[in-house]
Amino acid sequence: MTTVRTRVAIVGAGPAGLFLSHLLHLSGIESVVIDQRSREQIETTIRAGILEHGTVAAFEATGASTRVKTVGNQHDGIELRFDGEGHRIDFADLVGRSVWLYPQHEALKDLIAVRLEQGQDLRFGVTALRVEDEASDQPRIIAEDADGEPLEIVADVVVGADGSRSVVRKAVSGTHSGFFREYPFAWFGILCEAPPSADELIYSNSPDGFALISQRSATVQRMYFQCAPDTDPQSYSEAQLWDALQLRVPGTTLTEGPIFQRDVLRFRSFVADEVRKNRVALIGDAAHTVPPTGAKGMNLAIADVIVLERALRALLLENDERLIEQFPETVLRRIWKAQHFSWWMTSMLHADENATDFDRRRQVGELRSVVESRAGSTYLAEAYTGWPIDV
Amino acid sequence: MTTVRTRVAIVGAGPAGLFLSHLLHLSGIESVVIDQRSREQIETTIRAGILEHGTVAAFEATGASTRVKTVGNQHDGIELRFDGEGHRIDFADLVGRSVWLYPQHEALKDLIAVRLEQGQDLRFGVTALRVEDEASDQPRIIAEDADGEPLEIVADVVVGADGSRSVVRKAVSGTHSGFFREYPFAWFGILCEAPPSADELIYSNSPDGFALISQRSATVQRMYFQCAPDTDPQSYSEAQLWDALQLRVPGTTLTEGPIFQRDVLRFRSFVADEVRKNRVALIGDAAHTVPPTGAKGMNLAIADVIVLERALRALLLENDERLIEQFPETVLRRIWKAQHFSWWMTSMLHADENATDFDRRRQVGELRSVVESRAGSTYLAEAYTGWPIDV
Repeated sequence: MTTVRTRVAIVGAGPAGLFLSHLLHLSGIESVVIDQRSREQIETTIRAGILEHGTVAAFEATGASTRVKTVGNQHDGIELRFDGEGHRIDFADLVGRSVWLYPQHEALKDLIAVRLEQGQDLRFGVTALRVEDEASDQPRIIAEDADGEPLEIVADVVVGADGSRSVVRKAVSGTHSGFFREYPFAWFGILCEAPPSADELIYSNSPDGFALISQRSATVQRMYFQCAPDTDPQSYSEAQLWDALQLRVPGTTLTEGPIFQRDVLRFRSFVADEVRKNRVALIGDAAHTVPPTGAKGMNLAIADVIVLERALRALLLENDERLIEQFPETVLRRIWKAQHFSWWMTSMLHADENATDFDRRRQVGELRSVVESRAGSTYLAEAYTGWPIDV
Repeated sequence: MTTVRTRVAIVGAGPAGLFLSHLLHLSGIESVVIDQRSREQIETTIRAGILEHGTVAAFEATGASTRVKTVGNQHDGIELRFDGEGHRIDFADLVGRSVWLYPQHEALKDLIAVRLEQGQDLRFGVTALRVEDEASDQPRIIAEDADGEPLEIVADVVVGADGSRSVVRKAVSGTHSGFFREYPFAWFGILCEAPPSADELIYSNSPDGFALISQRSATVQRMYFQCAPDTDPQSYSEAQLWDALQLRVPGTTLTEGPIFQRDVLRFRSFVADEVRKNRVALIGDAAHTVPPTGAKGMNLAIADVIVLERALRALLLENDERLIEQFPETVLRRIWKAQHFSWWMTSMLHADENATDFDRRRQVGELRSVVESRAGSTYLAEAYTGWPIDV
């Protein structure tokens, strides 16, 4: 058994784990990051990529990503489409902020490159098996590498940034399963070779269900439409996929092109019962999962990191435990607001097969209330572009 | 069979029917109003009484009520209470408008007095049985008086302002039952002799359910708490009622006093499939019912009246059918927004026995999102104090 000693042992080289190691490095705190996936897997998995105003600011200010504003695209608004009409939510006008469309795997490429360049101990293909001594001041991660060789990482703090199937969570949450909500629908996502069909994201509520028209680059687009959770991605022909998308965005003619990737995204809301126990903490999807409608997943992870890193700095450099003790309360306030926002966007925009005619008309009444009110539009824009990070 | 001829035959002497006859009188259009209830019944039935800014303005400008501002009380805000804390929604600051607490039966006393003083043909104890010839330009109400004597009212227009069990609706909506939503809870309402426990309305979301602390006068108060729909009003002792109320408003000590009236209010959302057919129209509860949480019932009725009266003026004085043809679209936009607002306030504030722990925490996340955001608070305040009436 190889034993490694470090100050902060981080499980998971996603945005949360990598950005945490980056901030710790800037604070002069050594860390080790492990992930069971290969670097290539991490850098090529397609995920959503709406970065809040504050996420972009944090990436830029810390040098975590230098390409957001060159490769990414600034979006000053979104369109809400319902009842056959489009209504723009003008972020720049309403809240003076924007979001950036920058795919998550691009952010991960940036983060991995900068971490390795700065000498980060970052180990791919290493699977965390469990956390031991979680009640002590020297918790340990028991892991094994790609060859099955055992590895032990002893640290002052262990952080679970290991996603929705977190191994670290077992040491924090215990046997309580946390807070869940399932949804009776999923998203069918496609990547296609075509020019953009719209300049900004279109969130469309149609009688046939939700669709999201998104962009990726000048030549590649990402689009989604609401489907049943058990849908087989191969059950649609390309023509059927375009028909399904087009039907759900009445009033816009989509520019079609070869579809080269397709996937079905399941929806789930989840918050762990506990997000910290002594010197083990959870961040990102390990602590919470949101449905993708509010574009909050990665942003919430980055907000967790900023709060946790300040707490770790106080704990490890000044032996001050107050911030780490407040960590759960601080992040849970934002998490539950983001859970609400994600649920709200989801329930306002999707066609629930159990909905009555009353529910459907109320839903249109709600969308109309939001777009007809500057305050309502601002309330949505504030949440979408991101609340300030309270630390 | 006695036959009466008039220009507008109105079934129902509630706020909608009486205010419509009042506006028509000001426009020089004759009407007849019938109601199956006695004047005393109408003037003594306890109903809610939050008047929107625009409702008060309409009552004042037209002389429909001269007592709103002397007997009623101006409220510049409400309190939302959750998670053990109160948060004021300051209407005056957020939207520059207020609401008035003025019980509906007081408004009805004013309206009845002014209508009778001005010679209105207003008949109590007359029960409408059906509408005939609803497809013609001379629709008729078939009715009978308290002695069972038949009465026929032939008019240019028939208006159903006859509440949620409308007889007139059958001639408009046909067999379609309309759009419904039932709720798994009701309100237990009390009237008590006591000084006010708070200056403004408190809407409280507590783990034990919703409560509304309202006022009526310096010596009489109205309070409600969430209960099961099948609750027997007599099943609680006075002490149990105070315990139930107090439990649901943690942080405030209610001033107790003798409870002299108690009732259970059922919750229901309803919109008629059609609100106009040729020369028969529906207004108020005959067209729509909202749960009481948003305080929209009477205000929505008054908005219907203002839109309909303009349409009737155009039709009957200028033979212009455009406004009466647009009547459904015009009022339904507001109705569905109000249905949404009423559903929103209801779902945000009540404890649903089917709710999961996730739902309950999301609900607190939602309340927190609203009170922490000036835009969110403004969005709520705009709706509560009343959107402008679009005509």
